[in-house]
Amino acid sequence: MAETLFRRLTIIGLGLIGSSIARAAQARGGIAAEIVASDRSQAVLDRVVALGIADRVELDPARAVQGADLVILCAPVGAFASLAEAIAPHLAPGAILSDVGSTKQSVLRDVGPLVPDGVHFVPAHPLAGTEFSGPDAGFATLFEGRWALITPPPGTDSAAVETVAELWRRLGSMVSIMEPAHHDRVLAIVSHLPHLLAFTICGTADDLADETRQQVLQFAASGFRDFTRIAASDPEMWRDVFLNNREALLEMLARFTEDAQAMARAVRWGDAGYIEDKIERGRKIRKSLIEIRQA
Amino acid sequence: MAETLFRRLTIIGLGLIGSSIARAAQARGGIAAEIVASDRSQAVLDRVVALGIADRVELDPARAVQGADLVILCAPVGAFASLAEAIAPHLAPGAILSDVGSTKQSVLRDVGPLVPDGVHFVPAHPLAGTEFSGPDAGFATLFEGRWALITPPPGTDSAAVETVAELWRRLGSMVSIMEPAHHDRVLAIVSHLPHLLAFTICGTADDLADETRQQVLQFAASGFRDFTRIAASDPEMWRDVFLNNREALLEMLARFTEDAQAMARAVRWGDAGYIEDKIERGRKIRKSLIEIRQA
Repeated sequence: MAETLFRRLTIIGLGLIGSSIARAAQARGGIAAEIVASDRSQAVLDRVVALGIADRVELDPARAVQGADLVILCAPVGAFASLAEAIAPHLAPGAILSDVGSTKQSVLRDVGPLVPDGVHFVPAHPLAGTEFSGPDAGFATLFEGRWALITPPPGTDSAAVETVAELWRRLGSMVSIMEPAHHDRVLAIVSHLPHLLAFTICGTADDLADETRQQVLQFAASGFRDFTRIAASDPEMWRDVFLNNREALLEMLARFTEDAQAMARAVRWGDAGYIEDKIERGRKIRKSLIEIRQA
Repeated sequence: MAETLFRRLTIIGLGLIGSSIARAAQARGGIAAEIVASDRSQAVLDRVVALGIADRVELDPARAVQGADLVILCAPVGAFASLAEAIAPHLAPGAILSDVGSTKQSVLRDVGPLVPDGVHFVPAHPLAGTEFSGPDAGFATLFEGRWALITPPPGTDSAAVETVAELWRRLGSMVSIMEPAHHDRVLAIVSHLPHLLAFTICGTADDLADETRQQVLQFAASGFRDFTRIAASDPEMWRDVFLNNREALLEMLARFTEDAQAMARAVRWGDAGYIEDKIERGRKIRKSLIEIRQA
């Protein structure tokens, strides 16, 4: 087994992302000789056993991390502080502790101080997902061609950072190293705010009078369908993302609200030029996205 | 040719929708013995000839409608008033004048008073489209399985309404008759507001500092990609939609903004229960959509 990157990989939280890491590690090889799965839910662990995507399951995270040379936290970020507290005394010397959380400053804040000396803390965030959740939603190719962002705190061992980068490359991703605060601002606009808007518009529609709501569902045009697809994502995960990227998210929402109000004013006063200009900018961004092959 | 619904169908505006009607009418048969295409742009008409999707092209809409038993306005709704003025004196007695505009009260307001006696005015709106535009973007199956809403003014000849309904059924659509004001409210929430939000967030992102904007494009996660897809739609069409459904759109935007501010407050003050509840409502709407097979 000398050729695998890790002897024992422990995944804590077997939802969409965690179970996809397990599947990809199994499917691709060269990643881990043994995969240990831990989840707060016995029902999830039962599914993991039934799906055969781990070598061993453990309800107790402290037992799960023993002897692991890589531990990845894949629970909602709001659970990280208590998880870190539970596992910290049991992490093996020289092990790497990583995660897949969507907010990185909060992870540094919540987990960083609890990491024992001799354990390398290398936070990461794969930009991959679907609107489905749970261990049955994962699949081995989820990370292929997607970015994995690594946000090591200052002074992190560079060999450990390179090992986590190599993990993500072997899972099929492109890797970029990023400063945590910058990560949180970029994700606020490309992911967190769009989700907040999508959740909100579904609520707005749901509040409409009964007759209109029925027709909203019946005649949902493509615009609204795309919003509801986004809005179908995991509630607990997104609650934690919003609460743990509060500052950047509120700033982006404030900017967006100003811009939406300016658009409302243009609609009210019939400012056709302003409206056209805003629409053209949307097209320009879309064109740039296609050009860099992200679309 | 007794079996076709119309002897001569004139389509004014050969963009995504107009050219798709022409293609579908050709492909399906039983719709029109002759298709006449008119567009303000000679370049578009040249493409129509090259694509072979009409029997005859006419730059002058007044000439195009002569002898037609069905005329469909497929230009942006802001052009309807001047188009109606140009064609009204040339419409054949007994002809049906219809359209595909996304705003129906404005069409009644702009076109209704200009329709000559003896011509049947039957506005309609197919809920179909893509983010692409122009005569090359159309395709014959665009309307299959989608809704076509028909919004006849009070007193419209019921045989003419049924003829337009039959046209859309033959184009592959499901048909529903709807009151124009109700149409505009429903479309404001399911389509017009989502597009306004998508255009706006692209502008908000475009205003960010250079370094962040570059990374926004590079790391666009799925949430933002869906928004830019919506935002890539035709600027002129959407400018006209916003300006011609002003009242309903501003009302829905005001409701949405209140809801977004309430969400912002919950994020700021850490009200996890409120956030979860809003996310759950999004999932519930998504589930309803899937159940009624619109997703």
